[in-house]
Amino acid sequence: MENITWMEFNKRKEDSVVILPIGSTEQHGPHLPLSVDTVIANGFSTRLAEKINGLVAPALSYGYKSQPLSGGGPLFPGTIDLNGETVIKLVSDILTELIKDGVKKILVLNAHFENEAFILEAIDLVSNTYGDKVTIVETNWWDPMPEDVIDKVFTEIPFPGWALEHAAVTETSLMMYFAPTLVQEDKILDLKVEPCSYHKYPIDKSIVPESGVLATAKTSSAAKGEIIVNSVLDKLVEIVNEVF
Amino acid sequence: MENITWMEFNKRKEDSVVILPIGSTEQHGPHLPLSVDTVIANGFSTRLAEKINGLVAPALSYGYKSQPLSGGGPLFPGTIDLNGETVIKLVSDILTELIKDGVKKILVLNAHFENEAFILEAIDLVSNTYGDKVTIVETNWWDPMPEDVIDKVFTEIPFPGWALEHAAVTETSLMMYFAPTLVQEDKILDLKVEPCSYHKYPIDKSIVPESGVLATAKTSSAAKGEIIVNSVLDKLVEIVNEVF
Amino acid sequence: MENITWMEFNKRKEDSVVILPIGSTEQHGPHLPLSVDTVIANGFSTRLAEKINGLVAPALSYGYKSQPLSGGGPLFPGTIDLNGETVIKLVSDILTELIKDGVKKILVLNAHFENEAFILEAIDLVSNTYGDKVTIVETNWWDPMPEDVIDKVFTEIPFPGWALEHAAVTETSLMMYFAPTLVQEDKILDLKVEPCSYHKYPIDKSIVPESGVLATAKTSSAAKGEIIVNSVLDKLVEIVNEVF
Amino acid sequence: MENITWMEFNKRKEDSVVILPIGSTEQHGPHLPLSVDTVIANGFSTRLAEKINGLVAPALSYGYKSQPLSGGGPLFPGTIDLNGETVIKLVSDILTELIKDGVKKILVLNAHFENEAFILEAIDLVSNTYGDKVTIVETNWWDPMPEDVIDKVFTEIPFPGWALEHAAVTETSLMMYFAPTLVQEDKILDLKVEPCSYHKYPIDKSIVPESGVLATAKTSSAAKGEIIVNSVLDKLVEIVNEVF
Amino acid sequence: MENITWMEFNKRKEDSVVILPIGSTEQHGPHLPLSVDTVIANGFSTRLAEKINGLVAPALSYGYKSQPLSGGGPLFPGTIDLNGETVIKLVSDILTELIKDGVKKILVLNAHFENEAFILEAIDLVSNTYGDKVTIVETNWWDPMPEDVIDKVFTEIPFPGWALEHAAVTETSLMMYFAPTLVQEDKILDLKVEPCSYHKYPIDKSIVPESGVLATAKTSSAAKGEIIVNSVLDKLVEIVNEVF
Amino acid sequence: MENITWMEFNKRKEDSVVILPIGSTEQHGPHLPLSVDTVIANGFSTRLAEKINGLVAPALSYGYKSQPLSGGGPLFPGTIDLNGETVIKLVSDILTELIKDGVKKILVLNAHFENEAFILEAIDLVSNTYGDKVTIVETNWWDPMPEDVIDKVFTEIPFPGWALEHAAVTETSLMMYFAPTLVQEDKILDLKVEPCSYHKYPIDKSIVPESGVLATAKTSSAAKGEIIVNSVLDKLVEIVNEVF
Repeated sequence: MENITWMEFNKRKEDSVVILPIGSTEQHGPHLPLSVDTVIANGFSTRLAEKINGLVAPALSYGYKSQPLSGGGPLFPGTIDLNGETVIKLVSDILTELIKDGVKKILVLNAHFENEAFILEAIDLVSNTYGDKVTIVETNWWDPMPEDVIDKVFTEIPFPGWALEHAAVTETSLMMYFAPTLVQEDKILDLKVEPCSYHKYPIDKSIVPESGVLATAKTSSAAKGEIIVNSVLDKLVEIVNEVF
Repeated sequence: MENITWMEFNKRKEDSVVILPIGSTEQHGPHLPLSVDTVIANGFSTRLAEKINGLVAPALSYGYKSQPLSGGGPLFPGTIDLNGETVIKLVSDILTELIKDGVKKILVLNAHFENEAFILEAIDLVSNTYGDKVTIVETNWWDPMPEDVIDKVFTEIPFPGWALEHAAVTETSLMMYFAPTLVQEDKILDLKVEPCSYHKYPIDKSIVPESGVLATAKTSSAAKGEIIVNSVLDKLVEIVNEVF
Repeated sequence: MENITWMEFNKRKEDSVVILPIGSTEQHGPHLPLSVDTVIANGFSTRLAEKINGLVAPALSYGYKSQPLSGGGPLFPGTIDLNGETVIKLVSDILTELIKDGVKKILVLNAHFENEAFILEAIDLVSNTYGDKVTIVETNWWDPMPEDVIDKVFTEIPFPGWALEHAAVTETSLMMYFAPTLVQEDKILDLKVEPCSYHKYPIDKSIVPESGVLATAKTSSAAKGEIIVNSVLDKLVEIVNEVF
Repeated sequence: MENITWMEFNKRKEDSVVILPIGSTEQHGPHLPLSVDTVIANGFSTRLAEKINGLVAPALSYGYKSQPLSGGGPLFPGTIDLNGETVIKLVSDILTELIKDGVKKILVLNAHFENEAFILEAIDLVSNTYGDKVTIVETNWWDPMPEDVIDKVFTEIPFPGWALEHAAVTETSLMMYFAPTLVQEDKILDLKVEPCSYHKYPIDKSIVPESGVLATAKTSSAAKGEIIVNSVLDKLVEIVNEVF
Repeated sequence: MENITWMEFNKRKEDSVVILPIGSTEQHGPHLPLSVDTVIANGFSTRLAEKINGLVAPALSYGYKSQPLSGGGPLFPGTIDLNGETVIKLVSDILTELIKDGVKKILVLNAHFENEAFILEAIDLVSNTYGDKVTIVETNWWDPMPEDVIDKVFTEIPFPGWALEHAAVTETSLMMYFAPTLVQEDKILDLKVEPCSYHKYPIDKSIVPESGVLATAKTSSAAKGEIIVNSVLDKLVEIVNEVF
Repeated sequence: MENITWMEFNKRKEDSVVILPIGSTEQHGPHLPLSVDTVIANGFSTRLAEKINGLVAPALSYGYKSQPLSGGGPLFPGTIDLNGETVIKLVSDILTELIKDGVKKILVLNAHFENEAFILEAIDLVSNTYGDKVTIVETNWWDPMPEDVIDKVFTEIPFPGWALEHAAVTETSLMMYFAPTLVQEDKILDLKVEPCSYHKYPIDKSIVPESGVLATAKTSSAAKGEIIVNSVLDKLVEIVNEVF
């Protein structure tokens, strides 16, 4: 959507699926930049748009609060978090405007774990008002990933669970595929956090390694990134065909 | 807290852990009442209070919106959902008042899957202001449950994952233990839903079985409920000793 | 509602009056527990439901801010107050969900003086949107009480006015009737506050007796509680028949 | 305050009591204008200011929602009501600014029954933040009125209670005293409403007389207005001396 | 509207243009009172109402935050600013009520530079809901002023631009015409501020002259005020005829 | 900021000026894409960052509501507007997080006319809380532009005023300089709108040309873009040196 005029948008708005990528500005350890989630959300969205004749709306580069056990939390400088109410209002306004403009099919593609509850709240509120005019699908990139991809990607080390997959093998491999110049491979650490079964406030640093990494990114590769991208895109195309 | 006077509360407020149970009013299939989550939250909280000399605050009986794939969703009559902003404000006000009254240790015990993101947002906002006066722990009853309990409970059928464990074996067993007269065993159904990898709005009924049950509650028993309760309580006592 | 399944609720939702009891968590002197208002709201609601085939929704156990001259105010530990906006949103969300579920008759039964303006604001906002689908009645338990009951209850001492009737004869008599084990009769004090004609902030302790009692509860009895309950229930049944 | 420059305000701000009059725009029957509450709030405020060297802030001319049983309600054209949240924010912002400017003594003088709960919520929120910098008193003009004034004013007809005293003897007498040209004496009606013991929504017209008058204004006079004004002013001066 | 009864309002509501004047409480240098913007808004509104058979609603006497470079800013005592959200809600509620009462033509007449964005946001939100029932026009008094009036008014000194025209020639001339007793001519200063091309926070005093005046009011006169008033009123009548 | 790790950000956060570019997604006629304001905000920000050792935060790609007379308004598909409250919360959250991370110097660079009032409200609210920890400057790119640049740019046609300079000579020239491939020169129209002196709601199409262009972009060139960029950057560097 960013590079076309309103007249071009006008022609395509009713038939196209508009894809809204949502990322974050969040620490991703010593080897990845702050924009990882946004780069990945954009990476999937632009490739999906090509396959389904979709339109990619400008990505949201700021997301909901990073949690200590799935993203390192707010104590790392460079993590710029929005309050829950702000995420709800932001997503809600954008969806409402797309619908008022005549868009009928929207896919929200999220790449930041902590965003989801607030994105869904926004979609729910919008859908209560405009449910007869639009169909909205929301998914995280990892949700439609087939289970056998896990096996293909985690050949050397075990899968630590999605919550710990922050700046780890899947995100690093995706970055190597989508934006290799932004990965500093020599800075990848080797460690794994023991997940905690409760949330404690005030948040203190002891709960997260000093580096901000929750599980190692060793064994990441662009090839693995490509495997993930291709299999997820296949599934996303399936979802689009199924729903819209 | 409900049954004591303010003078009794006053004496105990600084040393005691105040436990805030949070449930919901949500459909739980044809064999369980609407109050399941609140009964379970209260069940754990009162037993925990006895073990740690804690004080149980009045439970919250209404929670965040039930989702189709983890609770059946809003289309079932009797599911009374709060908006995200309301949950945030409600939890935030109660925590703030407890802190202003002089309480120093709070444990929020949640029994409704969809509540968590909004409870944590409330705690985060409160902690930003009063973080130097209080320590707050939040946990769902299933988070501290040791993995071997799953094996003990799911002897006949496989564990369907926590999202589908709605009105299924664990919740039904807990109800048989906490409030057996509220369980209508003869109405337990035998079925399992295939989880969907995306959220679709407007929410339609096709995605959830007509009964509101996502996985069978067959093989539930009060004895299994007791196993869960005891093992979770042991862990909760550990957490309390560790944090406060 | 708490003890029935969604299917049972579904059958009765259109014909039944759904009663929403609203209480508070508030100091009630040295002889009554923090839950007085919730116990009383529930006491009236369940008895009324029996008489009119009504359904009682889970009670709200937290209410609007206690005021120094009608409840002792926020300086007493154990008084857990909600902000006005929170009460409005909470009541508004619950009413909206009941209406969306198909409920056509709602009675909000309030037992905490300070709640009323915010409950009415919530009902007004909901009624603006759904006024064609539902009829809502709101009343405090003392509003429909016939005047001659005052004479029957205040035989030994004069009626101090409703604002001062906090933890005094009427509330204590009701508790003796509804929940006698929660009343510590030996701790009842003998005193009366002179009402102040203005509100002063910041609130200071001098304005309220140290005990939190505004008028004596001496002469309270379960028999007097029964008189109040019966006469109010009669009137509530009349209102229900008149309005719905 | 309206007629002085900021330099004059600056000199007096710390020592003076700033009086904030709050009225409404609300129907007051066929004989009184929409501005009754604002005229009365201003009438008391300017006279009080003269007696105590106070400063009158610009009055608020719009207030909280008129209720059927204390003001006729929203069905009368010309009644322009604010939502509760708006009144809270409006009063809260003005008080905060006065405090930031260095004002130490504020008296909020309310003349519209339904405003009070929302004004007090605003003062409470402001006082929580700035309680160490300011003392705020809130009162309705009828609160400090001595009981014997009722006897002097209601010589011919009985006092119907404050809730029904809308566009009736006290308000009409005050208008005859403060702004006689705005009173159309020949249009005064003779009637009295039976008060209802509950609130019903949606609000319907049947509950209020077609004229918007709840009790007769017959027997009103400027002389009675003067009696009220003088006795209330005396009490207000007492309060000011007591508190500030 | 203030001086008529609801019955008189009722007769005229559908045909009349209701004019809502919006001012502020803001410093206007050593020679003008805090109420300048409200006096001017009312001055234009009442005169316009006479010409078009309009109804003037009670003016809003408090407005959005004064900015250092167009009004002196918040550091001057006596400037009482509302938050943006409060202005939006206040204007939005009043417009909504007028529309619900049956008003079909509304003109919002603003006299405080900084108000406009927030007034327009309120109108936009209201218009989204009630756009089919009402036409709303918003204008600042200086917007419809013909360019040649500038030449007639600024004969001795150059026009400094509207942002600096705070307490300067146009406002002072208008006050001399509308409310001459409130102007202290002997205190008019002779100075001009160099406008700054950026906003800096925290706001510091150095950016505005100590007097709060941004451009001189020398050469002001009631005659110039009259020229402005007449030419603007002519244009306003034109607008009213064109739009409604 | 997007391309660096949190550790690199951490080293530079206290000394660097963090620049927050704010754009919009808004129609810009038939010859420019929807992203014009964001491209321009980013273009200035990255070049400024190079000159002052600054850090550019991820740009905001959605802004406040486009107005008919300065941007064409909401009726053009592809214009995706945020509500005022959303802009305030979004900017406020990001600034707050930057400050909590330790940033001491922030420059907000706006490229969408209608954003400004809401950005300033956000900065004001943040500055009230954190004014002692940070200095924030806000400017639109056209504010610091020296007057003689207008003369250099508008050699063939007269300057139509900033409000009409939407998709016209300055924006088109800047796009030719910053992102020439996004400009479709052959689609540039030749027209000029007569500005209206009032705002009318509901917004109707008649007020804006069908193309969405308010003034012609003829005579635009990359060379003119470069003149603007260089002169504005010089001024921005001056401002940075002056303030921080």
